[in-house]
Amino acid sequence: MHISLFNGTNGAIPLSHRALAYGDGLFETLLADRRGPHWLAAHLDRLYAGTCRLGMAWSMAQNLALKEQLEALCADLDGPHLIKVMLLRNNPAHGYDFDPLLQQTDVLLQCSPYQRPDWTEQGARVGLSGSHVSRNSTLAGMKHLNRLDSVLARQSARRQGVDEVLMTTDNGTIIEGSLANVFFYRQGRWSTPAVDQAGVAGVMREQLLQRFAQIAVSGTEVDNIDQIESAFLSNSLMGLVPVRCLMGRTLAIHADIQTFNSELSNQW
Amino acid sequence: MHISLFNGTNGAIPLSHRALAYGDGLFETLLADRRGPHWLAAHLDRLYAGTCRLGMAWSMAQNLALKEQLEALCADLDGPHLIKVMLLRNNPAHGYDFDPLLQQTDVLLQCSPYQRPDWTEQGARVGLSGSHVSRNSTLAGMKHLNRLDSVLARQSARRQGVDEVLMTTDNGTIIEGSLANVFFYRQGRWSTPAVDQAGVAGVMREQLLQRFAQIAVSGTEVDNIDQIESAFLSNSLMGLVPVRCLMGRTLAIHADIQTFNSELSNQW
Repeated sequence: MHISLFNGTNGAIPLSHRALAYGDGLFETLLADRRGPHWLAAHLDRLYAGTCRLGMAWSMAQNLALKEQLEALCADLDGPHLIKVMLLRNNPAHGYDFDPLLQQTDVLLQCSPYQRPDWTEQGARVGLSGSHVSRNSTLAGMKHLNRLDSVLARQSARRQGVDEVLMTTDNGTIIEGSLANVFFYRQGRWSTPAVDQAGVAGVMREQLLQRFAQIAVSGTEVDNIDQIESAFLSNSLMGLVPVRCLMGRTLAIHADIQTFNSELSNQW
Repeated sequence: MHISLFNGTNGAIPLSHRALAYGDGLFETLLADRRGPHWLAAHLDRLYAGTCRLGMAWSMAQNLALKEQLEALCADLDGPHLIKVMLLRNNPAHGYDFDPLLQQTDVLLQCSPYQRPDWTEQGARVGLSGSHVSRNSTLAGMKHLNRLDSVLARQSARRQGVDEVLMTTDNGTIIEGSLANVFFYRQGRWSTPAVDQAGVAGVMREQLLQRFAQIAVSGTEVDNIDQIESAFLSNSLMGLVPVRCLMGRTLAIHADIQTFNSELSNQW
């Protein structure tokens, strides 16, 4: 099933829309099937928190109405689908500025069949991105529409012929992959990078941190990448994906990864 | 005169366009009148350099054709206009990834009457933004479509009731204003911040650096803001605007500012 709706109707984006001009908005990508969107409450919580941080005109009531719309949409799904929700700030003719009282929020909803990439079954081959992740504590954690850093990182993955690349800040701190959060095992401990300076606070990442106290939030510098013994990726569409090869080096696939995965699969 | 063209025709942006989804593109804003777009060659040089850095499908020939289109458009202008050119990467259904061989570049062209804000005549009241500029050496300098940092900074200006705010990196280095580059005078020297880690390499900034050897590229930490004796802003639409008040402190308007301004006004 393919759906594409702009404020509930078929349509297109006006040329002057500030979401196009500045990336002024947020998005969520959800895995969904006939039973409903997976981790829906967590996605909508993050979306709502993002609208607060960006000062968008979006109420709890609107968030709830969106929840009901997404649930209703799933009743007709045949097999796994990707649902993408975008909230776009609309306030014409202000340049970067917007009027907080006159702004509106447009809702773009897209739905299409989803198939996990083949490499998620075998485990990911992971390299190091030649381009950096953007660092800005004002924006960090949000899934906003300013994603050029991920776009360029995907090209780095393409050129290297790997499935995913790790993105670092300008000063060499590993933050995430181009399309997933990342978890490392070394010296007997699991950790995932903080996302308060850069990166996206992934919904699966949050679920893992809530459920498994043995996963610490702590940084890994790119200089210490050789110490990593095992690793996995997480995102809402792919779930958890073991890393089988990191910068040309074969990694062990730690038994915990299967444990984490089973636990999460049972819970949404 | 109002013009809005998407690839040469009236139209709208497809909902699935990756420029909307990720801010995957570039833009230029030019001041124009019947004599033509001001600093056209410099704007198009920067635009072309940006397409190379982002790996967009855009040739020198296309850049030249755009130049001729912009010049032709100006013949009919009555008074000053703002021309906005956006180059948008188009390559459907790839997520963050795109196929470098199959991508296309859409051209969005907008033109509308322009009037300088009143405050540019009196000199700007400038504050300090409560939100940060994004830091990423891979993206720094380009006028790309990932501009949420400037959007949030404009709100900070609005809340403070000032005309412009200075944006700093997370670690306190002043980079630029929300809509202009910035130049400082202290201890007998002019300087402007580097834009190789964050910020936009403004066309007016480049013209000033090319013409006036007494302007150094050097950083100013926010902790040293009290040392600034005089300052001005530069952007392509407003030209040079003296800062009359910086964080509540009245600044002298150095005679050099008028000299810089006269020299540039004579040259485009």
